[in-house]
Amino acid sequence: MTDDIRLCRTFQTAPAAVPKDDSAKYLRSGLEAEGFQAPDWLVPDMEDGTAPNMKDEGLENTIELVPEYDFPGEIWPRVEWSYEDASFRDRGREQIDQLVGEIGDELDGVVVPKVGRVEDVKRAAEVVAEAEAEHGYADGSIKLSIIIETGRARSDLREIAKFGEESRLTALVFGPVDYAAELGARDLGDGRPRWDGLLEALSNEASAGGLLSIGGPFDDLFKERAGLTYYNADAYADQVEHEAHLGLDGSWSLYPKQTIQANTVHMPTPEELERDVSKIERFNEAKAEGTGAVTLDGQMVDEATFKVFRNTILQVRAIDDTRPEQTEEYYDADLLERARTLELSYQ
Amino acid sequence: MTDDIRLCRTFQTAPAAVPKDDSAKYLRSGLEAEGFQAPDWLVPDMEDGTAPNMKDEGLENTIELVPEYDFPGEIWPRVEWSYEDASFRDRGREQIDQLVGEIGDELDGVVVPKVGRVEDVKRAAEVVAEAEAEHGYADGSIKLSIIIETGRARSDLREIAKFGEESRLTALVFGPVDYAAELGARDLGDGRPRWDGLLEALSNEASAGGLLSIGGPFDDLFKERAGLTYYNADAYADQVEHEAHLGLDGSWSLYPKQTIQANTVHMPTPEELERDVSKIERFNEAKAEGTGAVTLDGQMVDEATFKVFRNTILQVRAIDDTRPEQTEEYYDADLLERARTLELSYQ
Amino acid sequence: MTDDIRLCRTFQTAPAAVPKDDSAKYLRSGLEAEGFQAPDWLVPDMEDGTAPNMKDEGLENTIELVPEYDFPGEIWPRVEWSYEDASFRDRGREQIDQLVGEIGDELDGVVVPKVGRVEDVKRAAEVVAEAEAEHGYADGSIKLSIIIETGRARSDLREIAKFGEESRLTALVFGPVDYAAELGARDLGDGRPRWDGLLEALSNEASAGGLLSIGGPFDDLFKERAGLTYYNADAYADQVEHEAHLGLDGSWSLYPKQTIQANTVHMPTPEELERDVSKIERFNEAKAEGTGAVTLDGQMVDEATFKVFRNTILQVRAIDDTRPEQTEEYYDADLLERARTLELSYQ
Repeated sequence: MTDDIRLCRTFQTAPAAVPKDDSAKYLRSGLEAEGFQAPDWLVPDMEDGTAPNMKDEGLENTIELVPEYDFPGEIWPRVEWSYEDASFRDRGREQIDQLVGEIGDELDGVVVPKVGRVEDVKRAAEVVAEAEAEHGYADGSIKLSIIIETGRARSDLREIAKFGEESRLTALVFGPVDYAAELGARDLGDGRPRWDGLLEALSNEASAGGLLSIGGPFDDLFKERAGLTYYNADAYADQVEHEAHLGLDGSWSLYPKQTIQANTVHMPTPEELERDVSKIERFNEAKAEGTGAVTLDGQMVDEATFKVFRNTILQVRAIDDTRPEQTEEYYDADLLERARTLELSYQ
Repeated sequence: MTDDIRLCRTFQTAPAAVPKDDSAKYLRSGLEAEGFQAPDWLVPDMEDGTAPNMKDEGLENTIELVPEYDFPGEIWPRVEWSYEDASFRDRGREQIDQLVGEIGDELDGVVVPKVGRVEDVKRAAEVVAEAEAEHGYADGSIKLSIIIETGRARSDLREIAKFGEESRLTALVFGPVDYAAELGARDLGDGRPRWDGLLEALSNEASAGGLLSIGGPFDDLFKERAGLTYYNADAYADQVEHEAHLGLDGSWSLYPKQTIQANTVHMPTPEELERDVSKIERFNEAKAEGTGAVTLDGQMVDEATFKVFRNTILQVRAIDDTRPEQTEEYYDADLLERARTLELSYQ
Repeated sequence: MTDDIRLCRTFQTAPAAVPKDDSAKYLRSGLEAEGFQAPDWLVPDMEDGTAPNMKDEGLENTIELVPEYDFPGEIWPRVEWSYEDASFRDRGREQIDQLVGEIGDELDGVVVPKVGRVEDVKRAAEVVAEAEAEHGYADGSIKLSIIIETGRARSDLREIAKFGEESRLTALVFGPVDYAAELGARDLGDGRPRWDGLLEALSNEASAGGLLSIGGPFDDLFKERAGLTYYNADAYADQVEHEAHLGLDGSWSLYPKQTIQANTVHMPTPEELERDVSKIERFNEAKAEGTGAVTLDGQMVDEATFKVFRNTILQVRAIDDTRPEQTEEYYDADLLERARTLELSYQ
C-alpha cells in the first residue's frame, strides 16, 4: 500500500572520492549513517563534488562500496553531463553504462546535471534506456532525476515535467550555483537570489507531472560569531522550511546535520499525524455504520479529501519501513501503532 | 457603452443549503443584500460550501430562490467537478443541465472548480454548450468561470487563457486551499504561501486573454485579541489591496463585511475618478477646437491612453447601473454627474 | 575576442525632440556624454518621450545629429508601434525605413515598443528586414530590441526569446508603466508592483535565448526632504542592484546621473576582476606545465567554468574598447593591464 509514495525528504550528495587516506570516506559515512542522519536518497557524486583526477576512483568506490551495505534508502549516483558539451555527455554515458552494468541491481536511478531543454532531458533518458537494455534490465527499472540549473531547463520546465508524467523521470532538483552563474546573477553583498518564481514553478510542475521536487544545496555550513565557529543550523532550517512551505518534497543535504534537519522538517509533525489518523479512524467508523456518504466536521469526505489524509499516513509508513528508528523516536508509540494498523481503503 | 466592462469586484459565494431552519438562509441573504454589502457576482455554492447530504436541496434552493429576486448583479452557481474523478463531472453535468433548464434566463454563467489541464477546461465548456443547446439557449449565452486550484490548471494557465480569448470562458478565480493541498504546501506556523508567482501570472494571462482575474477566499473571518473576538478587517483588506495592486479585477468574499471591503477597494477612488473625468473633459474641449492630435500634460492622447481614462469612467458607470446606492455614497454628487454625462468617444 | 560580448549596461533614452530653442538638446547631450555619464546604448526616442507634434522633428534630429558624432556606444532609435493599432505600426514602418535609408550605417538596431504575442514580434522583425533589403544592407545587419510591456508579450516571453535565438532580436527591455496600465495594476500608495516574477522570467528567458535583458525606467528622479530637493540616488541604486542581483544585463537610464550609477553597478567590481584575472593566470600557468586537466582551488576548470571567468575579462575589455576613461578610472592600472593582455584561450 505504500508503493505509491516515493520518499525523498533528503537528497544527500557525498563525494564519491576525496583526497584522503580513505578516498571513500564520505561515501562510506553516508552508507553507514543511522537514525535521523540517514538520508532517504544517497547520491554518490561523480560530478562537481569529486575532483577531476579522482573521478575514476569515485566510480570505482561507488561500484565497490554500494553492494557492501544494505542501505535502506535509495541509491542515486550523480554522473557528468552538459547540454552544451558533448564530451561531458560521453563521460556521463560511460558512467551510466558502467554503473548499470556493475551494480544495476543496487541502483534506484541516476542523477543527471546541467540538462538543457526538454530534448536534452529526453536524450539523457535515452542513455539510461540503452544501458538498461544492454545489461538486461527491464525497461523503466532504472529511474532518472535531473538538476534544474540552466536557463534552458527552467524555460522548458513545464514541458520537462509533462515528459516526466510518462517516463522514467522521477525528481526535479534545483541547482542554484550553476543557475546563478548562467543567468549572470550578481552577489552584491546579500548572497544569491532565492528565485521564488522558480521554486513555485518547480513545486507546481512536479506536482502536475507526478514528480518529486527537491530544493538546492546550502553551502554556508558554518558560521563564525563572537569568536566561535559553529554549525549554521538556523539558516539551513529557514531554507528547508521555506521549501516545505512551498510544497517541495525534499531538500538537498551536504552534511549529516543537514540531513537530520531536512528529514525532520519534511516528515509530518506529530500533530499532523494525530489529526489525520484520527480523521481516518472516524471515517472508518462512520463507514462501518453504513449510512452513505461520510461527513467529518461538516465536510463530505470525498476520495480527493481522503487521499490528503491518507498521504500523511502513507508517508509515515514509508519512513517507518525504511527508517523505523526515526519514526519511533519522533512519534508517540501509541500514535505510531495506530498509523501502522489503520485501514486505508476509501471504498 | 458600458457593455465592454464586465464587473466582478466581488465574487461572493453563499452555501446553497445549510442545516438551519431556513436552509437557504445565506443564499437569501446574498440575494437581498443592499448597499456596499451587495456583491457584483453572487455564487450559490453547491460544491464545497454545501454539505454532501444537502446538495440536492442546495440545487432546489437555487432554482427556487433566484427567480424570486431581481438581483441586479450576476448569478453564477458553482457546481461540482473534478479533473480526476468522473463521478464529480457527472454530477456537475446534471447540475448544469438542471440549472440551465430551470433558470437559464437568470444565469450569467456557471463556476466550475478543480479543473485540470486545458483539455479539461474545454470539456467543461462543452458541457455548458450541450446544456445551452438542449434547452434552446443561444450558443455562448451561458458563460463559464473556473477555479484555478490544481497544479495542472496552473501549469496550463497560458493555454487556458488563450482558449478564453475565443470562448465562453470569462473569469479565472484562484482557489488556494485545494491548490496548497495538491502541491503539498505545508503550514509551518506562518499560514499558507501567498503564491505571488501564481497571482502575477493570473493577472497577466487574464489580461492577455481578455478575462477577469479574481483572488482566493480568506477564511480567517474573526480574530481574537485581548479578550475580544472581532471581524478580521485589516487582514482581509491587506489581501484585497495586494490583489488590486497586482491588477486582479476582483476578490472572493465569504461574508457581507468582506463584500463591503472588496467592493470598495476594487472601485476607482474619488481621486482616480476626478483625475480621469477631468482628463477626458479637457480632451473633449481640445478636440472641439479641432487642431489635430490632442496633447494633455505634454503627452499625446492616443487611442490606447484614452482607453485607460475611459475605463475608469466605464467601470464607475457599470457600478452605477447595477448599484447606484454605492456610487452615490462613494462619490461626490457633482463628480458622479460629470462621470455619468461625459462624452466618451475618441473619434 | 570581444565580439561575443554585447554590452548594454545602460539603455539611455533621450527624447529626439523637445520644445526648446535647441529641440535636440537631450539627444545632443547623450551623444556628447563623457566618462561614466556615457551610456552603452543611446536610444533617440521618437515614441513616448517625444510629443506628438514634434515626432517628425525628432526623426530629423536623429538623422542629422547621429552622423555628426563618433559615438563609441551603440545607437538604437525607438520608433512607434502597437500590437493593437495598425496606424502606429504604419508610422513605425516609415520611421524604420527612413532611419535605415538615411543613417543605416550608424545604426546598431531599432527598439520597438508595445509588441504583443510572438507573431507581432516576428512582424516587427520583418519590417526591419524589409528596410534592410530596400536599402541594400546585409540581412541581419540591423538588429531589433523590444519593450516587454503588454500582457501578451509577457505571456509569450518564452516563445519570443526562442525566436530570438535565431533572429535579429537582441534585447528584451521591461516597460513597467504601460504594463501596469494594461494589467490594471493599482497604485494604492506603495507605487507600482516590482513584478519579480516577470523580472526572473526576463532574466531566465534572455539567458536561455542568448539575448540581453534590461530593466525598466525609474522616473522618480528627484526627491524632496527636509526642505531640500535632490537627486534620488538611493532609490535608483536599489532598483539597479536588484536587477543585477537577478542577472539582468543592464538598466534603463533617463538621466546622466542614472547612467553613472547603472554603468557602475553593471560592470565587474575590482574584486571580481582581480579574482577572475588571477584564476585565468593560474590556469594559464598550470596549462603551460602541461599535466592534463587543470585544477584550481580543488575544482577542475572545465570549459564552462573557464567561460565564467573569461566573461568577466571580456566584459571589462568590451568596456575598455568603447569607454577606456571608465575602466581607467574604475580599476587599478596594473589590474587593468593584466586584464588587457591576458591569454584567454581554453585549449
